[in-house]
Amino acid sequence: MILIADNLQITRPDLAAALDRMDPDPICELVGQCEAAGAQAIDINSGPLTRDPVRKMAFLVDAAAAATRLPLFLDTANPKALEAGLRAGQNYSNQLIINGFSLEPRKIDHILPLARTYEADIVGYLLFPDSQVPVDEGDLINVAIRLYQAFQGAGLSDDQLIIDPVVAPVIWENGVAHNLSVLSLLRQLPDLLGFPVRTMAGLSNLTTGKIPKDKKQLLEQSFLPVLAGAGLSMVLLNVLHSNTVQTARTCDALLSPGVFSWMAI
Amino acid sequence: MILIADNLQITRPDLAAALDRMDPDPICELVGQCEAAGAQAIDINSGPLTRDPVRKMAFLVDAAAAATRLPLFLDTANPKALEAGLRAGQNYSNQLIINGFSLEPRKIDHILPLARTYEADIVGYLLFPDSQVPVDEGDLINVAIRLYQAFQGAGLSDDQLIIDPVVAPVIWENGVAHNLSVLSLLRQLPDLLGFPVRTMAGLSNLTTGKIPKDKKQLLEQSFLPVLAGAGLSMVLLNVLHSNTVQTARTCDALLSPGVFSWMAI
Repeated sequence: MILIADNLQITRPDLAAALDRMDPDPICELVGQCEAAGAQAIDINSGPLTRDPVRKMAFLVDAAAAATRLPLFLDTANPKALEAGLRAGQNYSNQLIINGFSLEPRKIDHILPLARTYEADIVGYLLFPDSQVPVDEGDLINVAIRLYQAFQGAGLSDDQLIIDPVVAPVIWENGVAHNLSVLSLLRQLPDLLGFPVRTMAGLSNLTTGKIPKDKKQLLEQSFLPVLAGAGLSMVLLNVLHSNTVQTARTCDALLSPGVFSWMAI
Repeated sequence: MILIADNLQITRPDLAAALDRMDPDPICELVGQCEAAGAQAIDINSGPLTRDPVRKMAFLVDAAAAATRLPLFLDTANPKALEAGLRAGQNYSNQLIINGFSLEPRKIDHILPLARTYEADIVGYLLFPDSQVPVDEGDLINVAIRLYQAFQGAGLSDDQLIIDPVVAPVIWENGVAHNLSVLSLLRQLPDLLGFPVRTMAGLSNLTTGKIPKDKKQLLEQSFLPVLAGAGLSMVLLNVLHSNTVQTARTCDALLSPGVFSWMAI
């Protein structure tokens, strides 16, 4: 399971301030910490970047690429910011991944084509066109098929696709039921699409909301192995939660064919 | 997931000594501790009881039943000891479960019929007739079908069966590969047998052998959710490992349809 750090969120006050004054140091420092903690990719969650999106996304990519050679997920719903990030990234060796599109028409029209132009992998979220979460398993399957059709229609190759079925917060009324559908879908996806599609899930999302702090870690550590057992390829998580990272490594050792190695956990 | 305590093992020197002098107190005390720690059933692992099996198993059941009303798993390969335990158990309200049989001819002939006589549930282990562990998934499926046929042949009803596909120690050369087959089988069993058969797994078995102590808990806590996600109904474990018990409860809350409750974890 590939560990993608979700730590670089521009909603964080210190990072927002760094972005405002165009100071790369706090960003480089955090990226370095994430890599040291075991991150195998970095998600640059810039938010919508309503003001000055082009310059700001380019700055964020420059700052992250200065600190790491790891793949960078460009996580914004703003197509202009996204393209600026993809362009800035051409100056570095880091792999760039678009995060992401969904059935939302705006994203199909303006984000999906960027994956072709920049030959980038792209995350597809299993959401209805109005960005609502499908709770029912049948709906989720239907959305997955429609998303894959849109992806194919954009002239992309299967190995560029990463599907994120969107883990829901447990405190949502339908959160647990939705997550059960997610697990079932993860197990079915390879057969459904006819190839071993890569999958991703945002683990932090599980514990979004008012949750006792001591329970968050327990929930993460309990749900991550279930996702791993259902075949998840990549997890987006707070890599500074060292116990969760250790759990992920243990799952890899337990679920990878071959001789078990203590060195791995 | 039902938690069955595997703590009552007569190989433990203090319990062996208690059994030798027919002193129920250490047994009652441990059973009480297990129930307080969250056990929902108690496995009485008496070993083969080569000497004086009838009197000793009856004594163990008497001692356990004096301390708890929880179901008791009678865990011995000795049919005489088993029958003595079943007979002794008739004096108490505790449910009795036979643990267990396999394709081993001796067990088919002498243990399986006791489930009919005493109208008891029975655990069936997925092992070859020579008690070897099937590593390959196809072999495991084949053994499951043959075991179910033997079970049916004994005139038992489906709701008496609990299948244990036998988790292997990770340090076995084929341990990880075998456990991957176990997970796949757990997911397939309801379809394979045509009813929602209950399943059990011995979690402590995963970490049998020379394993750094600090890794044992991590392995248990990582693998239990994977088993839960594959549909496991019951887990046999050391219930005094409080973190593992908490993980099991969290899995129940995450994997049971319905609204999530903090009270549950």
